[in-house]
Amino acid sequence: MPEDELTYFPIERLREFSTRTFEHFGVPSADATLAAGVLAASDLRGVDSHGVARLHSYFDMLTLGRINPKANIRIVRELPATAVVDGDNGLGLVVGPKANDIAMEKAEAVGSAVVSVSNTNHFGMAGYYPLKALERGLIGWAMCNSTKLVAPLWGAERMLGTNPIAIAFPCNEEPPVVIDLATSATAYGKIEIAKRTGKPIPPGWAIDRDGNPATLPEQMIEGGALLPLGSTREGGGHKGYGLAAMVDILTCVLSGANWGPFAPPFALRQEVPARSVGKGIGHAFGAMRIDGFIDPAEFRKQMDDWVRTFRATKPAPGTTGVVIPGDPERIAEAERRVTGVPLVAAVVADLRDISTRTGIPLE
Amino acid sequence: MPEDELTYFPIERLREFSTRTFEHFGVPSADATLAAGVLAASDLRGVDSHGVARLHSYFDMLTLGRINPKANIRIVRELPATAVVDGDNGLGLVVGPKANDIAMEKAEAVGSAVVSVSNTNHFGMAGYYPLKALERGLIGWAMCNSTKLVAPLWGAERMLGTNPIAIAFPCNEEPPVVIDLATSATAYGKIEIAKRTGKPIPPGWAIDRDGNPATLPEQMIEGGALLPLGSTREGGGHKGYGLAAMVDILTCVLSGANWGPFAPPFALRQEVPARSVGKGIGHAFGAMRIDGFIDPAEFRKQMDDWVRTFRATKPAPGTTGVVIPGDPERIAEAERRVTGVPLVAAVVADLRDISTRTGIPLE
Repeated sequence: MPEDELTYFPIERLREFSTRTFEHFGVPSADATLAAGVLAASDLRGVDSHGVARLHSYFDMLTLGRINPKANIRIVRELPATAVVDGDNGLGLVVGPKANDIAMEKAEAVGSAVVSVSNTNHFGMAGYYPLKALERGLIGWAMCNSTKLVAPLWGAERMLGTNPIAIAFPCNEEPPVVIDLATSATAYGKIEIAKRTGKPIPPGWAIDRDGNPATLPEQMIEGGALLPLGSTREGGGHKGYGLAAMVDILTCVLSGANWGPFAPPFALRQEVPARSVGKGIGHAFGAMRIDGFIDPAEFRKQMDDWVRTFRATKPAPGTTGVVIPGDPERIAEAERRVTGVPLVAAVVADLRDISTRTGIPLE
Repeated sequence: MPEDELTYFPIERLREFSTRTFEHFGVPSADATLAAGVLAASDLRGVDSHGVARLHSYFDMLTLGRINPKANIRIVRELPATAVVDGDNGLGLVVGPKANDIAMEKAEAVGSAVVSVSNTNHFGMAGYYPLKALERGLIGWAMCNSTKLVAPLWGAERMLGTNPIAIAFPCNEEPPVVIDLATSATAYGKIEIAKRTGKPIPPGWAIDRDGNPATLPEQMIEGGALLPLGSTREGGGHKGYGLAAMVDILTCVLSGANWGPFAPPFALRQEVPARSVGKGIGHAFGAMRIDGFIDPAEFRKQMDDWVRTFRATKPAPGTTGVVIPGDPERIAEAERRVTGVPLVAAVVADLRDISTRTGIPLE
């Protein structure tokens, strides 16, 4: 099967397969369903890098006992509008949703809340969490640190993860505005695609191991680093670095997790940091009651107006015009609910490998 | 006096002059002191664009009665961890600090809080607000919308302000980490400097009135727009646009202020939007008690380690190495407390004009 051939899987098939894979390791059924739901949301919304494409990494980590399948997730410290949660080295796909729930419950009680989480693992697509808040009529946000890949501006080595920020706002007649972005100039996946297709990478994406601009994907992959959003001093790279630092501190220093270059690896192929400065990686979640600020009906009406106003922006030449954050993912979801989720050959092979080793049927 | 000649003013002289200028319009003495303090913080920290360089714009707006000197700032709606504040069309330099105080008081009571503000005017340097939170041992953040200058990615017109985000974190032995960034690729002031010095502008900063890349500053100034952080789709411009949208919604839609292209002008020379969708511009403030998450001594110790670790990053060739957010401003402040604040001729002329028209002595 050629590497770029796509196989389409119904989302329910993938969800079931992921659930059973997690259960195989003793993850309690409700938690396995929760974790599979995070992956499924990602596959549906076209965020292919964070869906079942990562299941084999979770499989590896669970196989080696590096992730605790029966995590006892608990609040370590709290006030009415804050908490630190210890994820007991559980799946981030379970710890994340539970900590997000705590943020939402606290916000429902007092209007807004922030929850920071230590001793956890990668939580999947950041946008999943504010989408859950929307279901409860709340504004929600989420952040996560991750394995080092990004150099701070004017640095020549990996010191920060791609540290995403997501936040979502409900509308009335229009679909919600869902903002979900990494604080790096580009995604590591795009470097990998360039490598696979034998293409150079554009200026501003990465540096090589000596800190010089990388033009070939291999220069970044072999000891180089991604650049922060903004890329150069002139382009505002200090701002992307500042945002990544903010995520790093709110998710890790505030919770007691491993910040910066000390974030433990997400997958087996990644280097294990020499030092540990805390427990696991970190997340942060926030939620806000709209009626703690303004009449929710008025908010939603204004958001409709906001969306329509921005959609009507005069388009730049050679483009399809302004995109409302969340539109591409919503369109992907509508399509994929019909066509199924397209998976590349390498991901199908990974899932088949899990199937062979666990006896869980894929098809 | 040549245009680039600098005159040095002791900070206390500028503070006194600003205070008396505000009082001249009937701003109550305590409020005038507060407002002058925001400008002085900016001048001290080297954020020249937001200090007394703006005093003449405030002077103009107050002269024409466009800003209410005796604003009755009040909470319109609240929960223990939220509030919306109506700034009564007061000086943002007074409304901002008072709304920030409300966020801090609420955070002190329940652990964290978010306050959104309508019916206000530009609040000065965003970094001022988290610095106030540091004085109370809190983590604080601030956002503000502003007059349209920035095109959303793939748009060909001004739709968003430069919408800044600021947040600060305390250390123990190291100075605090102070992150303060606009969500545009560059500042309008840099376009003005290019115009003054007759230089082209680099790719990624701006577009012309048709939405094509601008290479000359005039192309942006005459009906063009700044680009969001990330500049292009390839460079992550959708992320900068997403961040600017987030600030716009949290500061304006959530408070009932004028969002997006409808933000009223900061200065007389700026165009007045045809439509109004709310009251004034908007701010948002947040604060968090560190002990709502972790032992504050432990947090500060880890932050020292964070700062030292990032400072020790291997430097990229041809650079001075990684800068800790807040370092340049702290260094500027140490210098300027000794040398005074250097003002360019145009700003001195503005201050002299105020002096002539009010009788308040400048020197």
